[in-house]
Amino acid sequence: MNTRSAPSVEELITAALAGDRRALARLITIVENDGEQARAVLQRLYPHTGRAHIVGITGAPGTGKSTLVNAMAREYRQRGMTVGIIAIDPTSPFSGGALLGDRVRMKDLVGDPGVYIRSMATRGSLGGLARATDDVVLVLDAMGFDRILIETVGVGQAEVDIASSAHTVIVVEAPGLGDDIQAIKAGVLEIADIFVVNKADREGADRTFMALQTMLGLGPRTVRHHGRAMRVDMPEGTHEGWRPPIFKTVATRGEGVPELVDAVEQHRHFLEESGEMARRESERAAHLLDHILRDALMARLLERVPEGNFEATVERVAAREIDPYAAVEHLMHEAALEAE
Amino acid sequence: MNTRSAPSVEELITAALAGDRRALARLITIVENDGEQARAVLQRLYPHTGRAHIVGITGAPGTGKSTLVNAMAREYRQRGMTVGIIAIDPTSPFSGGALLGDRVRMKDLVGDPGVYIRSMATRGSLGGLARATDDVVLVLDAMGFDRILIETVGVGQAEVDIASSAHTVIVVEAPGLGDDIQAIKAGVLEIADIFVVNKADREGADRTFMALQTMLGLGPRTVRHHGRAMRVDMPEGTHEGWRPPIFKTVATRGEGVPELVDAVEQHRHFLEESGEMARRESERAAHLLDHILRDALMARLLERVPEGNFEATVERVAAREIDPYAAVEHLMHEAALEAE
Repeated sequence: MNTRSAPSVEELITAALAGDRRALARLITIVENDGEQARAVLQRLYPHTGRAHIVGITGAPGTGKSTLVNAMAREYRQRGMTVGIIAIDPTSPFSGGALLGDRVRMKDLVGDPGVYIRSMATRGSLGGLARATDDVVLVLDAMGFDRILIETVGVGQAEVDIASSAHTVIVVEAPGLGDDIQAIKAGVLEIADIFVVNKADREGADRTFMALQTMLGLGPRTVRHHGRAMRVDMPEGTHEGWRPPIFKTVATRGEGVPELVDAVEQHRHFLEESGEMARRESERAAHLLDHILRDALMARLLERVPEGNFEATVERVAAREIDPYAAVEHLMHEAALEAE
Repeated sequence: MNTRSAPSVEELITAALAGDRRALARLITIVENDGEQARAVLQRLYPHTGRAHIVGITGAPGTGKSTLVNAMAREYRQRGMTVGIIAIDPTSPFSGGALLGDRVRMKDLVGDPGVYIRSMATRGSLGGLARATDDVVLVLDAMGFDRILIETVGVGQAEVDIASSAHTVIVVEAPGLGDDIQAIKAGVLEIADIFVVNKADREGADRTFMALQTMLGLGPRTVRHHGRAMRVDMPEGTHEGWRPPIFKTVATRGEGVPELVDAVEQHRHFLEESGEMARRESERAAHLLDHILRDALMARLLERVPEGNFEATVERVAAREIDPYAAVEHLMHEAALEAE
């Protein structure tokens, strides 16, 4: 009998598409582990990707990102859309990193068949994690999730990586996190499509809001948005035609969240109309190709270099007998990969 | 006359070795920009590297890492050693990111010829930044700095990268930064050689200290260290023979800093005696080689693929006409790099 053997990739995909959550979880684990099977899964699923809208939510610890992601997912569900959530923030309650209260708060999502939540392993280098994240996004996209929310802790540089994974990047701030916030902004200005001041009911929220306005070179203005009273700021100046708005939210009570989700949808519309979506998709494809290509080239080189030679070369570099560039030339020569 | 033309790499190196700080700054900029000249600089300097001890200092924003790095540098200077400081934390006062008060506080270091401070650009991906950091470390090492302190903001995953760059990793905590701290620990336990609870004069310092002890599986013990009263904890359990100690410091007043520097020196001694230093140096060499090799292989492939073909393949992947693995096979075939 064959029924008790491990299911094939094809069987897992069929089951996952039919709504089997355990099959989906296994597919994602396969992809995360990045072996021969991962390749089979991604190769099979790739043609079915490209439909989901991918939203990156980033911000320092303590800004309430997880609660915001939770509230956004709930809003999307009310609009009839399915949502995949990927938490690559080790402090996220989605990955078990936060207080029990937070986890209880998002329990309703866990039981919802239109929501899938995955927290990413925290091992390995940031580069490896970024790549695994992109691969998991592909799986969820192929499975038909309408919106994919990636929660990532952002302090300075880490935010840059999410920009190449997501269509829309939301940068979350909160009052009272100290002066560090100010300094972090520089790199963020370039990648944020939407700013959020969460915990807007706390003291200092106006100051955080105004600090953001100042950094974006805006004066304060109050705009009524869909007839609601939350203050929304739509900047005048813009790069490439999109003016990153600033929203105030109180994610624990869902305040400001419908407006935020509206803005994400407006941004998606903007990307499509302006041709920017095509540009971002090319960039994502180039990124994906670059990773796979480098791994393939490295594998090819190692096949061609005599056994043990690579390790011996590493030791010679460590001992300063040769410099790393000379070592690379040596290895390229051994693999018959010299310049022509 | 030739005197007004740009100095050669050789001239810059000679000048930098003679103490010319502008020449050193230019060398580092060359290396950061990662071009043909960068290769020449690194190839020339590599044989002279391997003498500095490299210390990574990581922790969340608000832990006082910069002040601690400053205090450690001053302590090393008092011991007659020269110090290079690399700040890859965008919130660091070294990179201009913090309050004026912090920058004034470290002004004494700026005027000291035995100290060189460099803040790293905050552009590009984390992978790119990690590599540039390793290259700048090589330059400072070759220039003869005895100790190189790398300050990096650490929230979860970012800390993993520093572990492959440094010989000794110090993880800095501080009281009162909220519950996030707890969750961050998991990945940190594996990379920390030394723990520091900075701002130890603040309320909650004991709780933070004990939380660390608990995570390390230790009971509280008070040890007198060099006759001083600061409480130091030397755990019993250990992986690979080194027991990561926990120190309390008040970096603004220099309290606990001599003991911390002693511990770094003890760790260096341990690495050398145990053979672990050789292992870490091999790992660093493998890392360096891997980066350079992948770039070289990619350059070789692009040379061999007909003009415009790579870009066209990216577009086909973006349009889901082919999957990225098929695209890689296609490109490898065009470059005559198929498996044999």
